[in-house]
Amino acid sequence: MFNFTFHIPTAVEFGKGQIQAIPKYLSKQNRILLVYGSGSIKKNGVYDQVIHALQDYFYIEFAGIEPNPEFETLNRAVQVVKRENIDFILAVGGGSVLDGCKFIASAATYSGDALDILYKKQEIIRALPIGTVMTIPATGSEMNGNFVVSRRETKDKLSLYSDLVKPKFAILDPSVTYSLPQKQTANGVVDAFVHTFEQYMTYPVDAKIPDRFAEGVFCTLMEDGPKLLDEPENYDARANIMWAATMALNKILSTGVPQDWTSHAIGHELTALYGLDHGQTLAIIVPAIMHHQKQAKREKLIQFAQRVLDYRGNDVNIAAELTIQKICAFFELMGVKTRFSDYGIDDSLFPEVIRKLSEHRQPLLGEHESIDHQAVMEILYLAL
Amino acid sequence: MFNFTFHIPTAVEFGKGQIQAIPKYLSKQNRILLVYGSGSIKKNGVYDQVIHALQDYFYIEFAGIEPNPEFETLNRAVQVVKRENIDFILAVGGGSVLDGCKFIASAATYSGDALDILYKKQEIIRALPIGTVMTIPATGSEMNGNFVVSRRETKDKLSLYSDLVKPKFAILDPSVTYSLPQKQTANGVVDAFVHTFEQYMTYPVDAKIPDRFAEGVFCTLMEDGPKLLDEPENYDARANIMWAATMALNKILSTGVPQDWTSHAIGHELTALYGLDHGQTLAIIVPAIMHHQKQAKREKLIQFAQRVLDYRGNDVNIAAELTIQKICAFFELMGVKTRFSDYGIDDSLFPEVIRKLSEHRQPLLGEHESIDHQAVMEILYLAL
Repeated sequence: MFNFTFHIPTAVEFGKGQIQAIPKYLSKQNRILLVYGSGSIKKNGVYDQVIHALQDYFYIEFAGIEPNPEFETLNRAVQVVKRENIDFILAVGGGSVLDGCKFIASAATYSGDALDILYKKQEIIRALPIGTVMTIPATGSEMNGNFVVSRRETKDKLSLYSDLVKPKFAILDPSVTYSLPQKQTANGVVDAFVHTFEQYMTYPVDAKIPDRFAEGVFCTLMEDGPKLLDEPENYDARANIMWAATMALNKILSTGVPQDWTSHAIGHELTALYGLDHGQTLAIIVPAIMHHQKQAKREKLIQFAQRVLDYRGNDVNIAAELTIQKICAFFELMGVKTRFSDYGIDDSLFPEVIRKLSEHRQPLLGEHESIDHQAVMEILYLAL
Repeated sequence: MFNFTFHIPTAVEFGKGQIQAIPKYLSKQNRILLVYGSGSIKKNGVYDQVIHALQDYFYIEFAGIEPNPEFETLNRAVQVVKRENIDFILAVGGGSVLDGCKFIASAATYSGDALDILYKKQEIIRALPIGTVMTIPATGSEMNGNFVVSRRETKDKLSLYSDLVKPKFAILDPSVTYSLPQKQTANGVVDAFVHTFEQYMTYPVDAKIPDRFAEGVFCTLMEDGPKLLDEPENYDARANIMWAATMALNKILSTGVPQDWTSHAIGHELTALYGLDHGQTLAIIVPAIMHHQKQAKREKLIQFAQRVLDYRGNDVNIAAELTIQKICAFFELMGVKTRFSDYGIDDSLFPEVIRKLSEHRQPLLGEHESIDHQAVMEILYLAL
């Protein structure tokens, strides 16, 4: 097992009606920026619950954070924060809104050009405190310091990290996810699955807790994910998926193990270039990576077959193939396609994917840093 | 799934050599009380590493915290804290030292009689910050707000809780546990197992993540616990047991599920009355509870057989019996006995156990609050 640091200071309030717990974590002196997206929270009752919880507090609203939050939009929010002396950011929405708020919280306290944070990976040394009401289980952003910001004009989607932007609190009410469009539910399940996968599907280091926990997350997503397509208001299934998605990326699964993150590195470029949803890009890339890296990931592919798929045979080749096949089938069952051709995409932009990886200084990917750009090209072709 | 709050702000530094990370979490202005037990840390090199890490800091040593830390001893430490204007407590040792420090941290900032905290469960409204270097994986105290304090003169062993005493940081270096006496290793494995058990062996509420994670902890303890008896310097096994013990009681396993804690309630009285180690009391009481509560815990006994013991048959009675039998066998394999008679204890003090439970206001135990004192007596007789 590798050495590690593990630290998630976020307080989670989980369950039906927990939005009312927001005031536990605020002070009457706070000047709050209430940030949300396109307004779906006004249709599903979340907005009303939040406003009710904030009735004794000072807040200003900032709406319009897009999926894959845009630097330009976020920068407008930064101006509001500065002008209004905001000292607390409340993100209400999915991973995109929260990621956007992490950027806002960092940029608002940065004296230089906010683009430095994006491109020069300027270290974040201060950030405003953040709380969140999550409405889409997917990114795990509610319990980590990761965030992703996009710039449409340059077709960039950039990953950032700071310990300082881990939310102070996260409200997770599974019942607010009843009304999610099926596509968002499905993308979220795929995203959580692949987060788990990136931390699990590498090589064994005899780290039993993260392995067993990851297998528990896989089982949960594969059992309850498909249920949501037929029973969108099944509370327990919604709750299990929501808590699984949080566990998938609060770093408990990466305690002491190697990590991959190839599919995310490639996936971000695909979203930026093709406009595919994040979950869609992962469902395309993961199967191709498994085929391409079958030898390197062999032992874990077999372990997945035995422990998650309950494979009882002795044929390790069949076991590894079974894992690849069942994961593809699971994505398809969730309604998320697993090939470029399903979206009418051919190989014409593949060189641009590689060029963007170079531009973003990603020469070598994977847990062994052995996936070079030639290998990425092979993976892209496997996914056609 | 039930609603829950989950919050572990502790930063964990896990792995070989991590004691050197202590200064990350201290300020040069801190006035530190370095607290430890009987001095075993001076034999295994931990003391030297800690002193090295503290070389640029002000600290005073306080040694002599006993297993099942004594109120009188802790109170002497409280006087030192007050006299020396201590503002940070560093606990170096096992769960007893850390539990003692949680009491010290609370009592030192309490203006009334420290006995109020113990007996009147006086709410703790302030506590000094605590850090810890754990040397025995067992209690999970390094990532929770629980602590247990004893008073030999009154034969009391009292459980306390405060959010404020959760450690700021915890150093977990598995290699420092190589030299643990076999009995302490075994007791720790049993303790961690039973913590997991208290949160799992109740009734199903379709909370998939805590169930799967608990099963992962059970598998880890049952696979690697016995290894330690033959290979005390097996790093990965030590690491897996250490991280499993932390997970067993950092409350991640109780997210959304009912909990039992009967064996701990009875076990604490047994330690106070008979002087048995905590792990020894649990290994005696848990099998008896399983027999007594076989109907109430039926579904989870079967689930354990299927998922942890890999039982493939269709006979649910055999499955439930198998679970009870294998858990007993596991405790015995670890060298921890499962009957009062193994320690030469008869039924003469059983009425006193019941009287102490009454005195400590524990009229009804178990996840259904259905285990009354008549039932406790039956459980005690089953354990003879």
